[in-house]
Amino acid sequence: MGIDFGSLSGRALLVDTSTGAEMADSMHSYAHGLIEETLPGTTEKLPPDWTLQHPQDYIDVLEQTIPDVIRKAGIDESDIIGVGVDFTACTILPIKKDGTPLCFLPEYKENPHAYVKLWKHHAAQDQANRLNEIAHRRGEHFLERYDGKISSEWLFPKVMQIIEEAPEIYDAADRFIEASDWIVMVLTGKETRNSCTAGYKGMWSKNEGFPSDDFFKSLHPKMEYVVDDKFSRTILPIGEKAGEITVKAAKLTGLAAGTAVAVGNVDAHVAVPACGITREGQLLMIMGTSTCHILLGTKEEHVPGMCGIVEDGVMPGFFGYEAGQSCVGDLFDWFIRTCVPEAYVIDAKAKGKNIHHYLREKAAGQKPGESGLLALDWWNGNRSILAETDLTGMLLGMTLSTKPEEIYRALIEATAYGTRKIIETFETNRVPIHELFACGGIASKDPFMMQIYADVTNREIRISDSAQTVALGSAMFGAVAAGKANGGYDSIFEAAKIMSKLKAIVYKPDPEAVRVYDRLFMEYVLLHDYFGREQNNVMKRLKTIKKETSKTINLKMKVIDSINMLPFP
Amino acid sequence: MGIDFGSLSGRALLVDTSTGAEMADSMHSYAHGLIEETLPGTTEKLPPDWTLQHPQDYIDVLEQTIPDVIRKAGIDESDIIGVGVDFTACTILPIKKDGTPLCFLPEYKENPHAYVKLWKHHAAQDQANRLNEIAHRRGEHFLERYDGKISSEWLFPKVMQIIEEAPEIYDAADRFIEASDWIVMVLTGKETRNSCTAGYKGMWSKNEGFPSDDFFKSLHPKMEYVVDDKFSRTILPIGEKAGEITVKAAKLTGLAAGTAVAVGNVDAHVAVPACGITREGQLLMIMGTSTCHILLGTKEEHVPGMCGIVEDGVMPGFFGYEAGQSCVGDLFDWFIRTCVPEAYVIDAKAKGKNIHHYLREKAAGQKPGESGLLALDWWNGNRSILAETDLTGMLLGMTLSTKPEEIYRALIEATAYGTRKIIETFETNRVPIHELFACGGIASKDPFMMQIYADVTNREIRISDSAQTVALGSAMFGAVAAGKANGGYDSIFEAAKIMSKLKAIVYKPDPEAVRVYDRLFMEYVLLHDYFGREQNNVMKRLKTIKKETSKTINLKMKVIDSINMLPFP
Repeated sequence: MGIDFGSLSGRALLVDTSTGAEMADSMHSYAHGLIEETLPGTTEKLPPDWTLQHPQDYIDVLEQTIPDVIRKAGIDESDIIGVGVDFTACTILPIKKDGTPLCFLPEYKENPHAYVKLWKHHAAQDQANRLNEIAHRRGEHFLERYDGKISSEWLFPKVMQIIEEAPEIYDAADRFIEASDWIVMVLTGKETRNSCTAGYKGMWSKNEGFPSDDFFKSLHPKMEYVVDDKFSRTILPIGEKAGEITVKAAKLTGLAAGTAVAVGNVDAHVAVPACGITREGQLLMIMGTSTCHILLGTKEEHVPGMCGIVEDGVMPGFFGYEAGQSCVGDLFDWFIRTCVPEAYVIDAKAKGKNIHHYLREKAAGQKPGESGLLALDWWNGNRSILAETDLTGMLLGMTLSTKPEEIYRALIEATAYGTRKIIETFETNRVPIHELFACGGIASKDPFMMQIYADVTNREIRISDSAQTVALGSAMFGAVAAGKANGGYDSIFEAAKIMSKLKAIVYKPDPEAVRVYDRLFMEYVLLHDYFGREQNNVMKRLKTIKKETSKTINLKMKVIDSINMLPFP
Repeated sequence: MGIDFGSLSGRALLVDTSTGAEMADSMHSYAHGLIEETLPGTTEKLPPDWTLQHPQDYIDVLEQTIPDVIRKAGIDESDIIGVGVDFTACTILPIKKDGTPLCFLPEYKENPHAYVKLWKHHAAQDQANRLNEIAHRRGEHFLERYDGKISSEWLFPKVMQIIEEAPEIYDAADRFIEASDWIVMVLTGKETRNSCTAGYKGMWSKNEGFPSDDFFKSLHPKMEYVVDDKFSRTILPIGEKAGEITVKAAKLTGLAAGTAVAVGNVDAHVAVPACGITREGQLLMIMGTSTCHILLGTKEEHVPGMCGIVEDGVMPGFFGYEAGQSCVGDLFDWFIRTCVPEAYVIDAKAKGKNIHHYLREKAAGQKPGESGLLALDWWNGNRSILAETDLTGMLLGMTLSTKPEEIYRALIEATAYGTRKIIETFETNRVPIHELFACGGIASKDPFMMQIYADVTNREIRISDSAQTVALGSAMFGAVAAGKANGGYDSIFEAAKIMSKLKAIVYKPDPEAVRVYDRLFMEYVLLHDYFGREQNNVMKRLKTIKKETSKTINLKMKVIDSINMLPFP
């Protein structure tokens, strides 16, 4: 069984270990959802950029979905040989030694720092800036694995925010723990730590461990022994068994006590074996509102703009590279929300078509390069390879006959150029990429876009055949935790051979389209470097002007009040 | 009386010479409109880029509108002391010596070259390219007055097209004449030529006359004596009297025979005195689908990117400078057509608001710089100052929260930056600009946009108070043709003092907005030069790719046919 915890809901999926067939699944939405305005039961407003969650929601997922899946599948609970868990990351909470979240205790339930800080809690930016500055000044070697920058979304900036803003929570917490590891603790009664979150979010590496106590002391005097006091230096590699279902957890979930539980994992990374990826040079794109790229390599190379490089972080024995594009599905949603004329909406409705579908059909009638348009896909900044949140979108080539579907296609192409730029950056840094794989909503539902990606990258693309690739990946790790002797597998590589699922279709590059896209990509790269590499910092300067005018100027168009605005034309 | 011939209709306006009061007007649409597909009575398709008109439509305007105005005003025809005529330009036709258009003759009525070539007939581009190339090779001095480039819209490329494609028409034509001069000929029975069209469209200057016979010979052997054979070297300055209404014209129009008629003029240029512009440094913006800028100067200076510099071309005794922005109202119409979401249209309807008005209200709530957006207004190329039709539009600064009204405002601002760039180019070339004036649909109906123009240019803007500024200007020239002794004026300067009309409102720059726009304009200039001055010719290269792929590649997304496209998300 795989249990997948997303940002708004969790789900359980039961998989037949001998075939990979998905037997039953169940989903449960978090009652508290994203806590961004006020804590439950209080009226005090949270500051901007906060995103919390309530750990009870995760317990509810276990309690609701697992029995539901067992019932639906009509099997005996003893037939379930292992459980794997994946979670969003870095999603952390402060707990007592026995695993009780601090926010469950009456004395802390009105303290926002006692709750789960979700991955997209962005209120620790000051702390992240300070951490980066200090680490650079000290010449900390670990920075290289993160391309010189620790994100405010990650572990230690979040811990720093707690120590600075709520020292009583810092003191009261026996442990800070990733939600993935906490769920494993709920199930097994044992605290374990996994190499994936520790590596990608916690500045840990297999070779070097955590940064030195001296470094942590330089962040905050009280943090000198933070690793030993609040974490653990024992990090289990992905693919290990964490423990077994306790009697208490068996009551909660309906699973049999003694069932094997895998070490925790991250929702994106766990998709890798579910797509059958087991070798170096196979890049997985997890495509949704944004795209996460994961690649296996056999050596640790410094690749500019990567989010992280972690040994054993994705598949044991490999270096897992992670990269990302911060705006993919979100960009198309913005376009639909902002730029689709009424006539199209009416026509789509009349034809009974979803507007995305309608636009794609129109855009599919165009040839590559025919619109004369080119975009930079930076509506939400550029994660890889520029790692610059203050970059913004750009579109050029418009004429008076430019149509909405041409802009739509140009935006899709821009995200494909962004992917190609990431691929080329890996390759110029001695990390080869031979094949592409994709999973997620876009990959399974948009063949038009996938064909453009194949043409732009000049590479074949294979698509996950599971609607729940991530949960399937967790189930595979569950089978590995159980082991071959118990009907599972002795390694994730073995499990991937049998249980992974790909669609029959392979998107193959069309040589004529490739030739046109090669020329367009050269133009993309020119503009990418012009706007992204400090040749013209206009995007950042416009953001500065935007911030300043929003704050300081109270301009009002007096003339608007004094004249009746006549309609025209 | 002023008679104004536009692209789709003509109108007559009767004005009281003692006050400028507009007493009556009448409009008549051309029965044949724009002839772009087939000639009247034929089925043969015209080639691409052709735009013809039928001269009978112009006669109909005289016959319909003038009696209508006299009737509406309830005056005696003898009270009308003078008539002025303005026309689109360069709009030319081949005629016999007596003024009969060749297309009126049965033997030529199926020959498209016998008709009027409207200003926007764009099929003489090859000829224009050749003319420019030869003139450059010969080091022809006249090129300087046109910033090195004769447009395909102008006189001699159009004549070259006739001599090359229809030599029989060239031979049969006793004269080629501007439609403005032809209407004056219809009214007065005399052939005259005006300094405005001769200067701006016919490569003529007061000082140097036409280019040499030798130059014309180098264009085509048969064109050596084209000026003497088909034109005239007698060019009357703007503000002169051309002649008087003939008995025949009196019958056609209901005007009294002997009424004074001014020499022909151009529709944009004639607006200058109607706005009370009589001094150097006063720039008029005629704002519609595109913007035409006209400025009086006291010296002939070479100003890069200008459309033309003509002594006596606008007001006698001054050098008239013309510049232009090829995409203004058209850009906002493109935006409305292409980028306004259904929700806005529904909301605007519910509130009973025109969508332009609705967007302007939303955009007026923003502060300068607040959107973080910046655009280059080149959707239809850049006329001044880059004179490059293959440039295209650009928009940058978009984020996932960018709203349609922010884009709308950014486009308005971009056209204002374009105007400021023109103003600064005049000034750096020793042609000062002290005051701005505006007329046309946008100027009178969009105070929001005019305030942005005042803020961006840091100059006061005054607005014509006539809904028919152009016809008013022609009426003023009619009053000057009549002369003071007959109740008119002895000069257009005198007429402008009394008959011109400006609104009470003056748009004054807001110092705080000016400060922000100064910074944004610096960014505009950087991008203007980067994309417009050969630093990165991406726009032209994209147009090349566009042309090539449209022609040569027949790509089809095979995968689209083979997979059912599921809607998402």
